[in-house]
Order: sequence, then C-alpha cells, then structure tokens
Amino acid sequence: MSVTAAPGFSAAGVACGIKASGDPDLALVATHDGAPVAAAAVFTTNRAAAAPVEVSRLHLERTAGRAAAVVLSSGNANAGTGEPGRRDALRMCALVAEQLGCATEEVLVCSTGLIGFPLPMDAIEQGIPALAAALGPGGGGDAAEAIRTTDTVRKEVVVERDGCTVGGMAKGAAMLAPHMATMLAVLTTDAAVEPAVLRDLLATSVLDTFNALTVDGATSTNDTVIVLASGRSAVEPDVLGAAIHEACASLAAQMAGDAEGATKVVRVRVKGAASREDAERAARKVAESQLVKCSWYGEDPYWGRILSELGSSGARFEIDAATIAYGDVVVSAGGVAVAHDEDAVAAHLAGPHIEVTADLGIGVGEWTLLTNDLTHAYIDENRGTS
Amino acid sequence: MSVTAAPGFSAAGVACGIKASGDPDLALVATHDGAPVAAAAVFTTNRAAAAPVEVSRLHLERTAGRAAAVVLSSGNANAGTGEPGRRDALRMCALVAEQLGCATEEVLVCSTGLIGFPLPMDAIEQGIPALAAALGPGGGGDAAEAIRTTDTVRKEVVVERDGCTVGGMAKGAAMLAPHMATMLAVLTTDAAVEPAVLRDLLATSVLDTFNALTVDGATSTNDTVIVLASGRSAVEPDVLGAAIHEACASLAAQMAGDAEGATKVVRVRVKGAASREDAERAARKVAESQLVKCSWYGEDPYWGRILSELGSSGARFEIDAATIAYGDVVVSAGGVAVAHDEDAVAAHLAGPHIEVTADLGIGVGEWTLLTNDLTHAYIDENRGTS
Repeated sequence: MSVTAAPGFSAAGVACGIKASGDPDLALVATHDGAPVAAAAVFTTNRAAAAPVEVSRLHLERTAGRAAAVVLSSGNANAGTGEPGRRDALRMCALVAEQLGCATEEVLVCSTGLIGFPLPMDAIEQGIPALAAALGPGGGGDAAEAIRTTDTVRKEVVVERDGCTVGGMAKGAAMLAPHMATMLAVLTTDAAVEPAVLRDLLATSVLDTFNALTVDGATSTNDTVIVLASGRSAVEPDVLGAAIHEACASLAAQMAGDAEGATKVVRVRVKGAASREDAERAARKVAESQLVKCSWYGEDPYWGRILSELGSSGARFEIDAATIAYGDVVVSAGGVAVAHDEDAVAAHLAGPHIEVTADLGIGVGEWTLLTNDLTHAYIDENRGTS
Repeated sequence: MSVTAAPGFSAAGVACGIKASGDPDLALVATHDGAPVAAAAVFTTNRAAAAPVEVSRLHLERTAGRAAAVVLSSGNANAGTGEPGRRDALRMCALVAEQLGCATEEVLVCSTGLIGFPLPMDAIEQGIPALAAALGPGGGGDAAEAIRTTDTVRKEVVVERDGCTVGGMAKGAAMLAPHMATMLAVLTTDAAVEPAVLRDLLATSVLDTFNALTVDGATSTNDTVIVLASGRSAVEPDVLGAAIHEACASLAAQMAGDAEGATKVVRVRVKGAASREDAERAARKVAESQLVKCSWYGEDPYWGRILSELGSSGARFEIDAATIAYGDVVVSAGGVAVAHDEDAVAAHLAGPHIEVTADLGIGVGEWTLLTNDLTHAYIDENRGTS
C-alpha cells in the first residue's frame, strides 16, 4: 500500500529501459480520477538544481499548490543537462498529463541517478503509456521499487492518526545530507487541507527528519519531497502535521538504515549548546567527520576525535563544561577521560545502532542528526560510475 | 640539515619510550648557545586546544615573542588531558630549560599523537637530558624523524634567498584541514627581525600554504607552526617573508604527498568567484567531499559530483556560467557536458597529481586547495587506535 494507503490515490512502477539492468525505473503516483488536489513540496537548496526540480517548482507556483500526479524516474538524474534537460522534464509531465487528462502543469516530476547525461527520451516516451495503464490502488509497492538506485531495499511508510492517513515512499542511500540531499519522497494523504497549510506542515516536518540526516555531507541536485492531499477526510492541521512528521521521520530512518556501504546507524545528539544553531553546527561537524566515521566503523571508543570536532565546529565550546557519552555511558567530562564501564561501551559500539551524546554544558540548545559509519563498501560504491 | 640549515641552531631526536614501537619520539630544536631569539607561532583554532598549545601560547605572550628552544613529542598528543596535561607540558619546558640554562618560559612545546591519554612523564623525564646531550648542528634529520606519527616520510625544507636561510621540518598526514590541522612545523632562520614582524610574516605565509591544505576537513587540537630567527643575517622583511612562504609551501606540499592512505594529490582551484571567500568556500566543499574523493580514487571523470558540490557550497553560483576542467581539458560548461578529449582526461586522472579547475564565471575571486583522494587505506589507518 504505502504511498497509496490514503484513499484517493493510485500508483504504478514499470521498467522502461533507463537502467541498463532492466530494473524498474519509472514510477507514477496520481489521484484516482486525475483531478488536481492540494500539493506542496520542498526542494534541494543546491544552486545546481536539476531540470525536474526546476520544472516541479514552476508547476507548483503556476497552480498555486495543486497537482494531480508525480512522475519519477531512476537511473538518470536529468541534472547537468541544461535547457534540453528542462525540455525533457517538461515532456515527461506532458506525456503523463495526456494519459490522465489533466493539465501538464498539474504534473510534478522527479529524477534520480547519474548527473550529466541526457535522459533516454525514447524509452520514456514508450514507458509512460504503459505506466499509466498499470496505475492502481495497489501499485504503491511497485512505485517504491521503481525509484530505487543504490538503495538495497524499498522505503515505505503508512501512518494512521485520528481518522487521517499519510502514506509515503522514498529513495536515498548516498549523496545524502541535510537540506534535501539525494533523496526523493512522495507522501499522500486523504486529509482536507489548503495548499498553504500543507506547505507549512511539510516544511516543518522536513526540518528535523530529512534535514537531520547526513550520510556524507553532500547535498544533491535533485532532492524533492512532495505531498498530495486528496481532501477526503476532515482533520485538524496539527493532527495532519503530526502524521506527516511521523511519516517523514520513518522514511528518514529507513534511509539512514540503508546508507551506502554503512554497517552502523549513528544518532548524534548535541545538547547544552548556546543555541539550537550551535547544537546543529556541532552535531554536523561530528556526524560528517571522516575520522569519526572511521572510528565508528572500527567500533573504536575514541572520544578524542569527537572532542576535537566539537572544538573546531565553530559552535561556542568550553572544554571544561563538555561531556561525551556512548549510549548511556559518559566517557569524557571536562575534556578529559573519565573512568567508566568499558565493557558496556564496547557492547554498545558493537551493535548496529550507536548513540553519541555530547553535552556542551553551556545552554539549552539541542539538535540530533542521524548518520552512518564510513566503510570500504562506501568507497567501492562511489569510486566509479560504471 | 633542514631545521638546522640556518646558522645558529642545533637539533636532536631520540627515542624515549612514548611510542610502544621504540621509534624516535622526542625532538628538540634550540639556539646554539641556549639564548632566546625572536620567535613567532600560529596555533590551531580548535577550541579544544591541547595542553602544549596553551603552554606555548602563554610562553610567547610572556616573553613578547622570544624563545630559545622548541621541544616536540610524538605518539601522544597531550590533548584531552586537562590540568594534569598542562602541568606535564610545562614540566617538559622546565626540563629543557634546565638543560639549556634558559628560562622555562623561553621554551615552546608541541605534541602529536593520540588524544585523551596522559603523557608517560617518566619516559620524558629520562629522555630530555639524553635529548639535550644529542643536540648538534647536524641533528635536523633526527629531529624531523622523531616528530613522525603516521607520516611515511620525514618532511624537511631549506630555502636560501638573498643571503638569508630558512630551514624547516614538519609532520602531518591526517586530521589535516586548513587552520592548522594535525600538523606541527618548526622553521628556523638566521634573519635579524623583530618578533612582531616575524609574526606577521608567518601568519601571512600560513594562509595559502598550511591553511590551504585539507586531507579530511578535521582541524586538530595540537597544530602549531613555530619560527625562530637567530638574528645573524640582515635581511629585508619582504625577502624573509618570501623565504618563509616558500618553506611553508614546500612543507604543505610534502604533507599532501604523504596524506594517510592517499594515492593522489589533488589541486582544486576555483576561480571566477564573486569573492576570494566564495572561491575558498567552493574549493573546500569540493575538496572535502567524500563522494568527489572517491571519484578521484577511482580515476572516474565524473564532473557531476563536482558541479553538485559547487552548487551546494554556499558560494554564489550561476550554473550557466560555470566550467569544470581536469588538467587543461574542460569537461563541462554551462552546467552540461561538453565534447572533449576523453583519452587526455583519462591519462590525467591516472597520474599521481590531479588538477581540477572550476571557473564560476562570475567575478575575479580565486582560491586553490591541496587535497587527496579517499581510499580503503585511509579507513584502515583510522578505524582503530590500537
């Protein structure tokens, strides 16, 4: 079910030949009747934004937040493709609109994959009619399958809350960092909500879910989160907001759990900072440190590197006030080692989930990031594109 | 010769037992007669600065820029060691002062190695008299040897220019980033120069040499560059500045060439930026990108990742104006691929030195960083501390 869990939506996923492997590479999420509904999106902050990002942003502006469908392709990012790329993205929307009987600008588009290569439009021209023919309320799983790239599993979520449903799917395994790194997510809900409210609810939910996830500090050209609301259920905005937040958090956690080559999911929590911004700055410096990531891979309780990253993060830092803990065990306080249960730390680091908490001891600012270890397999996945 | 190339200095390096391997781990650079001379230093900006950094900074303040010696230990950073660490660093200075017949505050101290462990002071107490006994004008090589940690080679330089000599030694192979990442360097010169002038000359030279080097974006707790000037040669400040700059540039290049696990030295040059700061921001985002570093390791001409990092660097960026080149070959212009000599690019990427030039096409801001690829060997060197 997933992205089609909320009443009012259909989905499909097919293989059209973008991927040389023959794996599914084209997905569609649409309203049952092809009529536009309230829609909102958050896009990458990358100034080299891909063609589909530009086209989707333009379409949402033109419709003042309404859409009937989202078409997604995987295997080619349609980024670094210039004006021809924008024409191709627009053409994808037009082909879908023709099938659904809606306007081109009521279709949003996402792509993920390699940067710098033209989309194989022949394959897509032929694929979209087949994709539309496959649309159905049970097609969520196929759609989630068709947006995978290096993802080893598909990522789906359903949240039911006080009579409203939020369903979703996502992809993302690397070039993953806060602010919409290489990830795509589509959420649907049956809630009745104005586009402007939906946009605020989505933007708020993204802040401490997708934007609090960093695999490698790289913010991609294509990242997009879209939500469509079919308007079938009356619901309070705060209930819908909580459901959207829960769905985003689940999908972000699924991405962290499937990060390229990773053997550990690590939650880095900084508290006691002078401000929320300082907490985020410090957490990001730790989470994106190659050296610290290597320690996690090696299950090495080397807090000295964490201390060093905190000290050089730019956040206000007073070494005498800081403590560092793995799990519940404080290993350093006031900038020096403290006696602790080393077996408990070793057991914690040996598990698949690591919790690192740094208390800066200065104020009440707090932030948590999800990240991963750095492994040989990450390098192997990324040393070549062929 | 190296750090003792300039008339007026002696050096030594011995093994005192800090390193379990038995390798040399204690070094000393001193004036011939133990009398203080003009001295200046640049220290890490890390707010978790190590004890020796604090002690050396204090000593230079108290003497208003004069020092007779620098004592350096390797294998233990004396960082994350609190007040006992400060006492140990001070004790190292006092032991050297006793041997040389100078004041404790006329001795500077540096350490490099693991963070969070107390210095083995018994070994150091016994080692320093032996170290002082070994001092000689031919001891520069032994001193350079004794400050190595994961460095595979020692790093030395001699610059002769218009009657003045600058000699130097350095260590640094990881936790290396601009702003004095884990690196130590000691320079000596026979020039006659006021401490305040010497400080300005050093600070200026560091900007585009050591601070333009990034192996892994980590700024260490211990980084220190010190210069001592014996005052034996009259020289114009601009001549001395040029010689110091050349020595710093050589040592920085030697560090880049010996970065942990690296197979390539990469020079990332960003030009045409809206400002120098923007150029540095963009160059740093590219140079510190795990994904881009993996491409270099794989000799993969994947400019899409470089485009994406430029776009998300925070620097002003207009995709239509940007070009990206490997060596002399432009591979992308206006955000899209351009036809080019692919064999020439493959040959360039296969070599040990890669040049990446991004021209943002907006203004005249320019910056160049030295960095490396990311390899399995880097992970293996850093996954464990034992």
